[in-house]
Amino acid sequence: MDARTLPPVIRLSPEDGVVIARIAIPEATTVAEGVTTNRRIPPGHKIATRAHVKGEAIRRYGQIIGFATDAIAPGDWVHTHNCAMGDFAKDYAWGVDARPTPMITPAATFMGIRRADGRVATRNYIGIVTSVNCSAHVADLIADAFKRNPFTGQDPLAEFPNVDGVVALTHKTGCGMTMGEPLRLLRRTLAGFARHVNFSHVIAIGLGCEVNQLGPMLEEQKLAGRLRNMDIQEMGGTRKTVEAGIAFVKEVLAEANRVQREPVPASELIVALQCGGSDGYSGITANPALGAASDLVVRHGGTVILSETPETYGAEHLLTRRAVSREVGEKLVAKMRWWEEYTAREGAEMNANPSPGNKAGGLTTILEKSLGAMAKGGTTNLTAVYDYAEPVTAKGFTFMDTPGYDPVGATGQVAGGANLLCFTTGRGSVFGMKPTPSIKLATNTAMYERMVDDMDVNCGTILTGEESVAQCGERIFQLMLRVASGERTKSEGYDFGSSEFAPWTLGATM
Amino acid sequence: MDARTLPPVIRLSPEDGVVIARIAIPEATTVAEGVTTNRRIPPGHKIATRAHVKGEAIRRYGQIIGFATDAIAPGDWVHTHNCAMGDFAKDYAWGVDARPTPMITPAATFMGIRRADGRVATRNYIGIVTSVNCSAHVADLIADAFKRNPFTGQDPLAEFPNVDGVVALTHKTGCGMTMGEPLRLLRRTLAGFARHVNFSHVIAIGLGCEVNQLGPMLEEQKLAGRLRNMDIQEMGGTRKTVEAGIAFVKEVLAEANRVQREPVPASELIVALQCGGSDGYSGITANPALGAASDLVVRHGGTVILSETPETYGAEHLLTRRAVSREVGEKLVAKMRWWEEYTAREGAEMNANPSPGNKAGGLTTILEKSLGAMAKGGTTNLTAVYDYAEPVTAKGFTFMDTPGYDPVGATGQVAGGANLLCFTTGRGSVFGMKPTPSIKLATNTAMYERMVDDMDVNCGTILTGEESVAQCGERIFQLMLRVASGERTKSEGYDFGSSEFAPWTLGATM
Ligand SMILES: [Ca+2]
Ligand SMILES: [Ca+2]
Ligand SMILES: [Ca+2]
Ligand SMILES: [Ca+2]
Ligand SMILES: [Ca+2]
Repeated sequence: MDARTLPPVIRLSPEDGVVIARIAIPEATTVAEGVTTNRRIPPGHKIATRAHVKGEAIRRYGQIIGFATDAIAPGDWVHTHNCAMGDFAKDYAWGVDARPTPMITPAATFMGIRRADGRVATRNYIGIVTSVNCSAHVADLIADAFKRNPFTGQDPLAEFPNVDGVVALTHKTGCGMTMGEPLRLLRRTLAGFARHVNFSHVIAIGLGCEVNQLGPMLEEQKLAGRLRNMDIQEMGGTRKTVEAGIAFVKEVLAEANRVQREPVPASELIVALQCGGSDGYSGITANPALGAASDLVVRHGGTVILSETPETYGAEHLLTRRAVSREVGEKLVAKMRWWEEYTAREGAEMNANPSPGNKAGGLTTILEKSLGAMAKGGTTNLTAVYDYAEPVTAKGFTFMDTPGYDPVGATGQVAGGANLLCFTTGRGSVFGMKPTPSIKLATNTAMYERMVDDMDVNCGTILTGEESVAQCGERIFQLMLRVASGERTKSEGYDFGSSEFAPWTLGATM
Repeated sequence: MDARTLPPVIRLSPEDGVVIARIAIPEATTVAEGVTTNRRIPPGHKIATRAHVKGEAIRRYGQIIGFATDAIAPGDWVHTHNCAMGDFAKDYAWGVDARPTPMITPAATFMGIRRADGRVATRNYIGIVTSVNCSAHVADLIADAFKRNPFTGQDPLAEFPNVDGVVALTHKTGCGMTMGEPLRLLRRTLAGFARHVNFSHVIAIGLGCEVNQLGPMLEEQKLAGRLRNMDIQEMGGTRKTVEAGIAFVKEVLAEANRVQREPVPASELIVALQCGGSDGYSGITANPALGAASDLVVRHGGTVILSETPETYGAEHLLTRRAVSREVGEKLVAKMRWWEEYTAREGAEMNANPSPGNKAGGLTTILEKSLGAMAKGGTTNLTAVYDYAEPVTAKGFTFMDTPGYDPVGATGQVAGGANLLCFTTGRGSVFGMKPTPSIKLATNTAMYERMVDDMDVNCGTILTGEESVAQCGERIFQLMLRVASGERTKSEGYDFGSSEFAPWTLGATM
């Protein structure tokens, strides 16, 4: 498609009173019916498509990004000179924007694996959880025994086509660590993986003398019946533990293989939302498109998990307005206060205000900037707020408190039970996370083409005008259903997802 | 050997005025010439072997553990009733105990690999350093291509017998991290591995958009000439980066293989000292035996690195007295103050005081307790104090500030340049760390026998009277020379040492 024939603007939501300039637009250009620019508009900046009276809310992604500080006419450039947050951030306005979600019935279906406890899996792995770094290599040795050999093609799991693999989940902590919340958080994370629906069977391996003792962890997390556990010291060292681990896997393979996919409703989807390596297009292509797909997941009865708390900071008012209850909203606000304290203590800073560069790029307010990331969550009501790695049981649009850093954030979301993950990227990430398949969405066509071995979806089509945000969202939703049914993502093809297991570590290392 | 025929006590150093009861000793037992007990002595407790006047220093491991608070006669039980720290901890007494080291000439030799820059390697690996977790799996994929296949025995390095392997050093951080010291510390650690003498060639792999950018890191650490670096985003994704990495390794294998071992003096040894999974025997068998070996390393002109700052806390006065200068001593004391602040900030506690259980086991003062761990360092002068992962260039007995947690502590020591690592363990650890071979020393025979697949040395022989501390130390020193010459340790046999790479992470995860 030739650049000169492309539509000059992008509409992110039908509810919006502004559109975004895809390219620099000269004065006196008609960009929509009855909307003609009255000055040059820089790329990424906003043009009003209807009149706003002074004080009226200005919406992008269907959400408030600020208020008119002056009367705004169709065709006007909208930026800091006529749009500001005003007193918005002084009032959490609990739930004022919550509204009934138009559900879609009957819900779409995918081919899932229904477990005995009723939960639905999208993959079928055997997991090896480790209590401490000291048992990491032993866990790897067990998992390696079931790995396909790239030289010979020999596949120890060839007879078990319904088993996706054996995954060792190793990390750097578990001892020399601070008691209290740091230890609780690690246990919650490990337990979340140990009970993940995408594992048919799990082994837990400890050393024996670590702070994070397996016994108390299994008891605290009520996991005792779910898994086989072994301590290397009790087993008599590396060789005996590896042999016992391999024997256990061999013992359960036939049973693990005995699963069948069957049609299940899309309401069984629990989708983790991530972005990493954002660029200037993230907020106008992949993130809003994923938001449109998130709205579809929710309208089909499923769950989406927005996270990355530091990227929501300062714009939490948008979510408190959509909260289904004051309690839910207050839990979110308490997280923001916790982060202020955490970052101050650690010599880091929380500041989401648009930088001069952001403003030059067209971002007017902190709300608009944060929405670039938050747009992934769509527009439905906020139904629950979770701690890092806490089991996600609510339906609808939920929030989990995590860092923005991809592996740590995604580890919390998957520990919470996500059975699908969608990851938008502008610069190009090669992320994957077992046992949950990760769909990677490129914000622009150039990067998509350059890293096509790693990208599952090109959302650059929105920029070129080939697709609307809604159309791209529908395409993502359809891919979600196929991936949940077993279609392999690019990162699964390269066996990503074990290195990326990264529990959030708090506290001192002693 | 029958328990009844064993000597009832252990002498830890010829300079000591006390011996340690190996078992419970009845009243009126003669435990040495002219030394007869005048009451029952519990196991692990001290018996005076000579008279001490009130106020006289009491030594264990040849070092001060306290002062007589009363006159002490030969045969007397020595504990809290007649021994205390007094004002010891109020005076750093800079350097008062420093004394000339009796050097051994000519120095012993081992078969080392002399690099072009003059440094001596004990192993010959090719390394893959990663800037961020996002490049971890790509690094693993490259290293995996050169791994021996356990099923087929196929060995991609079969033609290159002088290359010990290709090691991917992956971690969980590198982005979403706090600037300043947390980032500097990560870079120092990665750079220490990148320039490690045991690597003939190094690749550095980044994603491209991470906080810890490869370019600035290589410049800051003056590594640009030493390694090949590539960013996944610039290379065009996973497949192309893995192909380029494999091609690079293939390109340098012949050159890497062109090394020859030659006799080099023991003064080229840089030995990291670690303990993990301590037990009641650590302080009377493996740690003092390793201390005796450390003294030999130093007397042959080599370097040892004691670390694990939290285990030295409260007993730093022992090291300030042995410091070669006030500056060296002050650097150590400043580290203790830093740890007080760090742990307070993180809700953890620094407290090395003997617990009631420690006291029941025979540990009288904080000095004696800390010496249980510090004994590994031997008795020579403290020649230098280093920050975590800082290059260790001094000869003799040095200290590096690290946590006690094994993988994090050892990662700092190896980043500092350690070409050999000695690890004492009572409970039984299965530690290893590439590219540096790790010798594991068991504190007791029962654990040694139970975990013989993982243990290199049994120091339980000291407990059974088969060997003195000095004899065991000599045996460890001889093994150090053989391992430095290429003899494989147990953990190398099981391919340990990649999972254990664990840079100390400070600051908030954003
Ligand atoms: Ca280990
Ligand atoms: Ca992220
Ligand atoms: Ca990755
Ligand atoms: Ca240690
Ligand atoms: Ca690994």
